Amino acid sequence: MKRFLLLFFLMMNVTGFSHAQDRKRVREYGIQIGVLPTGKLNALTDVPGVQVGQVTLNKGQDIRTGVTAILPHAGNLFQAKVPAAVFVGNGFGKLAGMTQVQELGNLESPIILTNTLGVATAMNAVITHTLQLPGNEKVQSVNAVVGETNDGGLNDIRGRHVTEKHVLEAIQKAKSGPVEEGNVGAGTGTVCFGFKGGIGTSSRQLPASLGGYTVGVLVQTNFGGVLQVAGVPVGEELERFSFREQILKKADGSCMIIVATDAPVDARNLERMAKRAMLGLGKTGGIVSNGSGDYVIAFSAHPALRIPYESREKTQTMTLLRNDEMSPLFMATIEATEEAILNSLFKAETTVGKDKNKVEALPLDKTLEILKKHHVIRP
Amino acid sequence: MKRFLLLFFLMMNVTGFSHAQDRKRVREYGIQIGVLPTGKLNALTDVPGVQVGQVTLNKGQDIRTGVTAILPHAGNLFQAKVPAAVFVGNGFGKLAGMTQVQELGNLESPIILTNTLGVATAMNAVITHTLQLPGNEKVQSVNAVVGETNDGGLNDIRGRHVTEKHVLEAIQKAKSGPVEEGNVGAGTGTVCFGFKGGIGTSSRQLPASLGGYTVGVLVQTNFGGVLQVAGVPVGEELERFSFREQILKKADGSCMIIVATDAPVDARNLERMAKRAMLGLGKTGGIVSNGSGDYVIAFSAHPALRIPYESREKTQTMTLLRNDEMSPLFMATIEATEEAILNSLFKAETTVGKDKNKVEALPLDKTLEILKKHHVIRP
Amino acid sequence: MKRFLLLFFLMMNVTGFSHAQDRKRVREYGIQIGVLPTGKLNALTDVPGVQVGQVTLNKGQDIRTGVTAILPHAGNLFQAKVPAAVFVGNGFGKLAGMTQVQELGNLESPIILTNTLGVATAMNAVITHTLQLPGNEKVQSVNAVVGETNDGGLNDIRGRHVTEKHVLEAIQKAKSGPVEEGNVGAGTGTVCFGFKGGIGTSSRQLPASLGGYTVGVLVQTNFGGVLQVAGVPVGEELERFSFREQILKKADGSCMIIVATDAPVDARNLERMAKRAMLGLGKTGGIVSNGSGDYVIAFSAHPALRIPYESREKTQTMTLLRNDEMSPLFMATIEATEEAILNSLFKAETTVGKDKNKVEALPLDKTLEILKKHHVIRP
Amino acid sequence: MKRFLLLFFLMMNVTGFSHAQDRKRVREYGIQIGVLPTGKLNALTDVPGVQVGQVTLNKGQDIRTGVTAILPHAGNLFQAKVPAAVFVGNGFGKLAGMTQVQELGNLESPIILTNTLGVATAMNAVITHTLQLPGNEKVQSVNAVVGETNDGGLNDIRGRHVTEKHVLEAIQKAKSGPVEEGNVGAGTGTVCFGFKGGIGTSSRQLPASLGGYTVGVLVQTNFGGVLQVAGVPVGEELERFSFREQILKKADGSCMIIVATDAPVDARNLERMAKRAMLGLGKTGGIVSNGSGDYVIAFSAHPALRIPYESREKTQTMTLLRNDEMSPLFMATIEATEEAILNSLFKAETTVGKDKNKVEALPLDKTLEILKKHHVIRP
Repeated sequence: MKRFLLLFFLMMNVTGFSHAQDRKRVREYGIQIGVLPTGKLNALTDVPGVQVGQVTLNKGQDIRTGVTAILPHAGNLFQAKVPAAVFVGNGFGKLAGMTQVQELGNLESPIILTNTLGVATAMNAVITHTLQLPGNEKVQSVNAVVGETNDGGLNDIRGRHVTEKHVLEAIQKAKSGPVEEGNVGAGTGTVCFGFKGGIGTSSRQLPASLGGYTVGVLVQTNFGGVLQVAGVPVGEELERFSFREQILKKADGSCMIIVATDAPVDARNLERMAKRAMLGLGKTGGIVSNGSGDYVIAFSAHPALRIPYESREKTQTMTLLRNDEMSPLFMATIEATEEAILNSLFKAETTVGKDKNKVEALPLDKTLEILKKHHVIRP
Repeated sequence: MKRFLLLFFLMMNVTGFSHAQDRKRVREYGIQIGVLPTGKLNALTDVPGVQVGQVTLNKGQDIRTGVTAILPHAGNLFQAKVPAAVFVGNGFGKLAGMTQVQELGNLESPIILTNTLGVATAMNAVITHTLQLPGNEKVQSVNAVVGETNDGGLNDIRGRHVTEKHVLEAIQKAKSGPVEEGNVGAGTGTVCFGFKGGIGTSSRQLPASLGGYTVGVLVQTNFGGVLQVAGVPVGEELERFSFREQILKKADGSCMIIVATDAPVDARNLERMAKRAMLGLGKTGGIVSNGSGDYVIAFSAHPALRIPYESREKTQTMTLLRNDEMSPLFMATIEATEEAILNSLFKAETTVGKDKNKVEALPLDKTLEILKKHHVIRP
Repeated sequence: MKRFLLLFFLMMNVTGFSHAQDRKRVREYGIQIGVLPTGKLNALTDVPGVQVGQVTLNKGQDIRTGVTAILPHAGNLFQAKVPAAVFVGNGFGKLAGMTQVQELGNLESPIILTNTLGVATAMNAVITHTLQLPGNEKVQSVNAVVGETNDGGLNDIRGRHVTEKHVLEAIQKAKSGPVEEGNVGAGTGTVCFGFKGGIGTSSRQLPASLGGYTVGVLVQTNFGGVLQVAGVPVGEELERFSFREQILKKADGSCMIIVATDAPVDARNLERMAKRAMLGLGKTGGIVSNGSGDYVIAFSAHPALRIPYESREKTQTMTLLRNDEMSPLFMATIEATEEAILNSLFKAETTVGKDKNKVEALPLDKTLEILKKHHVIRP
Repeated sequence: MKRFLLLFFLMMNVTGFSHAQDRKRVREYGIQIGVLPTGKLNALTDVPGVQVGQVTLNKGQDIRTGVTAILPHAGNLFQAKVPAAVFVGNGFGKLAGMTQVQELGNLESPIILTNTLGVATAMNAVITHTLQLPGNEKVQSVNAVVGETNDGGLNDIRGRHVTEKHVLEAIQKAKSGPVEEGNVGAGTGTVCFGFKGGIGTSSRQLPASLGGYTVGVLVQTNFGGVLQVAGVPVGEELERFSFREQILKKADGSCMIIVATDAPVDARNLERMAKRAMLGLGKTGGIVSNGSGDYVIAFSAHPALRIPYESREKTQTMTLLRNDEMSPLFMATIEATEEAILNSLFKAETTVGKDKNKVEALPLDKTLEILKKHHVIRP
């Protein structure tokens, strides 16, 4: 019984193949994560002004990758930066742009998610995008923020199929409204808890008595551990989890987490929110393994906190939440992160990719059965 | 229904008062946390050489506090330091000695846990203890590591009742073997998830194929959130959790987490283990609120890694685990932390203290009922 | 010629003993540090509202220690906290209160400097002071910020002669106006570059075109390296510097640096200022040796940035300097730190202490001669 | 007299134009920096195994940029990683690869220096280089470490003229032996203290009694402040320094510092060495302005510390320097950094570039005159 070894890209057959059209978000099955209410769309884009654009590369047998772009607002981000922070959950990843965000406390470009070997190409695209924007004719320095996870199990990652054009397209397609989840954008080829992972999103809206603020989260899931759905040990009951089997595989997975809010918080408190997101990941059973590059990027989209690139004023006046008011935002971040990760698994579909590797989707029938047994789905 | 405000030291009556003798550890009720096996005692002291000593101050109506001392080994710690690291989950606390541990990567004194206003007194006691040890006659600098949580809800904390003598006694009483849990030592007056918290402990032992190492955790629990037991939303079902009620109270709680291992890991990888402990806290429903001082101190008790204070050698040869081997230790840390926190709640008893404030113990009957309903306790 | 070893508490006779009354501050000898003008007093207290109080313990043959207290303002600091940050130059020290300052971005108590084994006692005094202040009757948590250097070469540090009363006295004596330097307060027994160190201070006032702000620095000097005065290698010419001689001694020294400003800057930019102070230390020839506990604590005394402990408001409106305006403050911090360190050496007098150890003052006659030769002192 | 404003790309004529062939390294003029002896070449490459390759792009009127590649050893770096660490002096820069170096404590690729908008292209080249190396056929993840400074004053940086081919060429040209300095490689278009900056290098070799280790430093200089040469305020005497003039210019400069050693030190102590390098920068008069991206990357080239990518062993045995032995390495790092920066200025030549901008070289005649006046150059 005690045979424990890594089994990350294990492609064994699990019955319960789920058709795409059947797969819904966790909440649609009556599964409730946490105690706070969601925003209208239950998505990152519930934070006013935030936009998401995705390009999916699903070509031939070997290309299963893509790009997801997150825009804090629709304007010229370089000229109107937003307060931001990064928390490094585990630094075995290639996140670009981290130190400048931390030093200056702001973000001046779209956030791009893609695959590990596509980071540099995405950076170049962000630079191109920024240099070409009207008003940026004299800009000579751009801090591109690009995160990644490694989709090399399903995708011919060494082929480096993401081009600058794909990234620019994702930026251009960015819009508010519902966000596509599952095998899409940067989540096209990812694997999570041994099942097909992908893009997921969720949000929380605080009650008016706690400020009424919204927290939105978007994730790119590609990591391991022992899956728990709403606290239920689904991974264990499905007998699929890290260190369970004798088959040693390298866990090069990761999780990128984007947290947006309309609360008026500066970089210091955004970093504290970012730190909490990792607890949401933990609640899904993630263990932040050695090979995982887990990063949280948090920003405030509050319109009054925009930081002008240049200003005649030497000072800026800001109205910020007091430290004492942060706890509900922390709770919202944890809940939305947990649900976003679960949404990525619920929405992702079984995928065959590179070398005919097959990664099954989370078997929803069995999962729902387990959840019913555990009284998580309420009749 | 959605009235959310802080309710930390809310003392409402919950039926289901539990007598001390009845309260057992979570595992004794058939509740399993995680997938890895525990060590023999399921305690911090499963790590060979590690000792724990506790002094409980339970006097009159108003004094509900104490001291818990953790010794990485029974020898002269100053002369034979151990590799160590600290992770700051949330820095709203008074942890002493943090920067030296981080800079030098080692620990040279017992770790003391006590109440917030007792930290300085405990430091003085550790200095006294260290200066008096045979062999330390010329020592002029001692890095006392002292953590705390705020037991001011039940304890007359402003009375500052912890003395150096109490701390020295805790150090002297330190021993291997089972560790007392609940209302004991530094956990005498703490409150967790609105219930009586305290000291808790747990351990994991990796299977031989993953190295066979032991990870032990000890916690002092005094924080808030939405209690989950083995994933089950017990706090919600008992209708007691943060931000639920209209009664605004300050959450000055905290959680101190001590992680010990016999794995041969240096400060850098100990810091990574420490970081994972916070995920175990998250899995119990902790939200690491603004007012929480949450710190993890991790050390390796591996005998071959002792760092001599003085040496004729300019170098030290060490055999250390490769980064690639860390993931099982991360998983073990998460699981043991989660279970240690739950043990603190299961073992702690209803307490009346300062100003006749009463904090109920977690009602075990109701809790077990809920867990049965959720199929966590297997018949 | 190339015999390099540590020589920290080397007590060899250097001719040129200087009488106390003769010793002036560097600037009084026509030595100019940097390019920016000083404040009126060339002291930390040039920052409006900042107060300093010192108690010197100079008893018998063996007690050479003391306390220096810095108050950001004269009011109740717990109720009206100030923005603050800490930078750890080298963490081999016992600075208390660091993590809370970093997490919350503020300071809620006087800063106390004393000797290494007196930190805990000073913390207890700060707690006593804070609990007793009118308006703090319900306070149950105090983050005492206490720094230290090790004066064990001249002082019977193991005797732990600093008492709470001394610390409370230093707080009570705190006042604006000129600050005593040299063998005073926490600098009574310290050694710097092999000469007598102590307390030093300096300030810079930016020209109106750069904002007109003041930066004040106070230091407690107890470290080693190769002394440079205004860039001139005085230590080398006096043949006294680290690693020069065959006599191996432990360098347990340190430097505490306090930076105050009236510029409207928050914790993030205060941390950046704190980081720059280390460059000022470097310019005096300090090498931040392994055994050095070098910390910089920076705060803004700007009256409009006070952070109330409790508030009916959930937000606080602040007018803050933009990142782009920080560079002159960085330059001011570097210059004032360099000059404060040099002032500590110029003002400190030859001292005989514990075990009849004798530490010579920097020989001013020879030093001035060297500086003249190097055209640093302009005729 | 108090006209203080930024003057970075001020192109006023300074007499004393220096011909390339005349310009020597600081030490060749009899200027001594610090007290420790240099290595044989007084260069980064004095550390056995370390190689440097440079490609200079000096085309037409507008292209003044290039690439500098540093290889810790000549073998397959991905398969035989080296212990490494990064210290962020000021994070307003685009350093790629930072978080993985910090998390895992190692470096798995050449370090590339180039211009700000060339970072992504250089990363792609490093990925290409690594994927193609024999033995790396299955590698799917590469942590490219690429630093930059902004040469947009002299170089048409928006034209993005650095290509992958240039970077691969720099890697291929890498060799041991003397390192070219001044207007070369990544230093082709940089500006430092208002004069032409560039690439500089220096080294220190500890005496046998202190271990006999070598520390080598290479810098790419592009920052501001008040230039000091061997402590002498040359910038002030030449009347050219930051904040002196009314001409407001943006200081987008930076300094990249590479520190190599053959001492057996792990990531934690390498980070401490990296931190000290900033003091060397400070001693040249650098102020680490807001717009400066100042990073130090330190690695150990000690052959016995290579970290295999894959291993059958779960542990690795390493013989490491004790903390107590680090101070001489700290001093060596500071001295070599100071001298490397000065060498970059002494060797760099007057350059005309983009928009006919002209940046004068440091006028050596006047500088030497000043240094003689200050008795720094000994007859």
